[in-house]
Amino acid sequence: MDTDLILLGHGSGGKLSHQLLENLIIPTLSGIPIAGQNDAAVLEHNGSRLAFTTDSYVVDPVFFPGGNIGDLAVNGTVNDLAMVGATPLVISVGLILEEGFSRRELAEILTSMREAADRAGVSIVAGDTKVVPRGKADRIFINTSGIGVFNHSLDINGTNARVGDKVLINGTIGDHGIAIMAKREGLELETDIASDCAALNFLIAELLEEGEAIHVLRDPTRGGVATTLKEIALQSEVTITLDEASLPLKAPVKGVCAVLGLDPLYVANEGKVLILAAPEAAERLLARMKQHPLGRDAAIIGEVTAAGNGRVQMETVVGGMRAVEMLSGEQLPRIC
Amino acid sequence: MDTDLILLGHGSGGKLSHQLLENLIIPTLSGIPIAGQNDAAVLEHNGSRLAFTTDSYVVDPVFFPGGNIGDLAVNGTVNDLAMVGATPLVISVGLILEEGFSRRELAEILTSMREAADRAGVSIVAGDTKVVPRGKADRIFINTSGIGVFNHSLDINGTNARVGDKVLINGTIGDHGIAIMAKREGLELETDIASDCAALNFLIAELLEEGEAIHVLRDPTRGGVATTLKEIALQSEVTITLDEASLPLKAPVKGVCAVLGLDPLYVANEGKVLILAAPEAAERLLARMKQHPLGRDAAIIGEVTAAGNGRVQMETVVGGMRAVEMLSGEQLPRIC
Repeated sequence: MDTDLILLGHGSGGKLSHQLLENLIIPTLSGIPIAGQNDAAVLEHNGSRLAFTTDSYVVDPVFFPGGNIGDLAVNGTVNDLAMVGATPLVISVGLILEEGFSRRELAEILTSMREAADRAGVSIVAGDTKVVPRGKADRIFINTSGIGVFNHSLDINGTNARVGDKVLINGTIGDHGIAIMAKREGLELETDIASDCAALNFLIAELLEEGEAIHVLRDPTRGGVATTLKEIALQSEVTITLDEASLPLKAPVKGVCAVLGLDPLYVANEGKVLILAAPEAAERLLARMKQHPLGRDAAIIGEVTAAGNGRVQMETVVGGMRAVEMLSGEQLPRIC
Repeated sequence: MDTDLILLGHGSGGKLSHQLLENLIIPTLSGIPIAGQNDAAVLEHNGSRLAFTTDSYVVDPVFFPGGNIGDLAVNGTVNDLAMVGATPLVISVGLILEEGFSRRELAEILTSMREAADRAGVSIVAGDTKVVPRGKADRIFINTSGIGVFNHSLDINGTNARVGDKVLINGTIGDHGIAIMAKREGLELETDIASDCAALNFLIAELLEEGEAIHVLRDPTRGGVATTLKEIALQSEVTITLDEASLPLKAPVKGVCAVLGLDPLYVANEGKVLILAAPEAAERLLARMKQHPLGRDAAIIGEVTAAGNGRVQMETVVGGMRAVEMLSGEQLPRIC
């Protein structure tokens, strides 16, 4: 493998992405240690905190069951702000269009963006549009950046997981990635799988009423639940143990995963949050989530079982214990 | 011309860009009237103002005399914040990489970004990296978004030009666009034209010591001085008259423009600011600029001569008066 070239896997969100970030991008651009990285940066200004985040979206296909690149881009950035406990305030939209892209499809995407922004309670206040010649991009790429504000002083951070914490998720895993793959592979007629693409900020705001019991929030997008928990385990220097039997998984997603040879634990989600919380609050959090439209299939899926190591393991349904590593290579390119 | 398709000209920054923005993008995404659009959005939060801006960079070639896509992206966003009078605070970096892009070139670009950020006094605090398959992007695209803060209460806005205002610029026009074109066309050995790519925030901060005399600041990037002044004329509903003889222009830029059939008034700049200011402050502003390394070739190039109309005209060197419209079509694709 020629290490002098960028590979698809460098965009996977998995092990190669982390290596590129740790070895090149982060030390060069910011010098902020990777252990301090969260879904959004948190800044102090004039005595109040601001959250700031950016994401580019290159999903293929642009339209998929359950959404399109537009609402995906808005929800994704709203979620990144929510994952540090911020209230999303404004977002920006940077469009890169390929010459010859359909204006009608552009209008449809922009309308989805506005609707998603309205639903999430954010305003789109800044934008930019570039056009590149045919063949120099793939239809449309969208960057959304966002600013969030804080109405509390909680510190939600990947470094905060503690031994005993329960791991919760607000619903079924793998829906987004499998919806994209099914559409891309032409399997869409055989299944009714839709992306879970949704803005989680109002759900998170409710959960934050539990205050300091909430230690970590993170959305398991690229790299899936496995990679995201591994990140947290490394940041907090703990061992996380998952219970395979408790992982919420839709039957058609399980079916497509089997057909395509994919592990749902590594498949991207776009409307899910992993919550690491004090054990005494776990049942209350679960009950709150189950009351919310975006948390009906919520479950407690594991816990922090030991200090040290940065390890994730899973107790399998057959009773074994399996090590869970970050995604290797590029399982599902251009998933978001 | 099939109006159902996106054309290269929609990314020109000129007339087609404005039509797409006015007719589709802005009404759909934000509903903010185009007359209120500046280089950055200004928000009120907790009684203090924040500036927020975004730009994607797709420049071709990625490396050019005087810079590369990396420092261009940092300086561009720093400048957009400075153009509303804000002090740039933090920026985000969203990378879209084509599979097979050179890691060495990526490192060089990222290093330039960090150096540009350090020079401008901003921190890069958030980022994202996507990779798309070979042939689905062109080497590297970069989005930079930024947040700025205000240490004054001045209202710098495209709507603020008044009759009598002088129009100033901090130096020669067209350097960036011609440096890009010369490199792209293989003319680089015959000329020594370099991009003017630079962060203007410290220069602007000095000029703002003139306080309320400063009415409008805007950087004449895509679409050049002509298109930018036309935007301001429309926003402020005034007529701006340029004096062709006073336009600072380097001889080699003039030469390449003649060879390529380009009008320097429409060629992009990346280290220039147009200033519309009260006439009594104009000479002081000019003197201040000339003292600054980024303002040595500063000049007073015109004035606001009448109310109404949204018109720009130029008194030519041969004594005629020529109407100046926005850039039509796509003169120089992928200039930034």
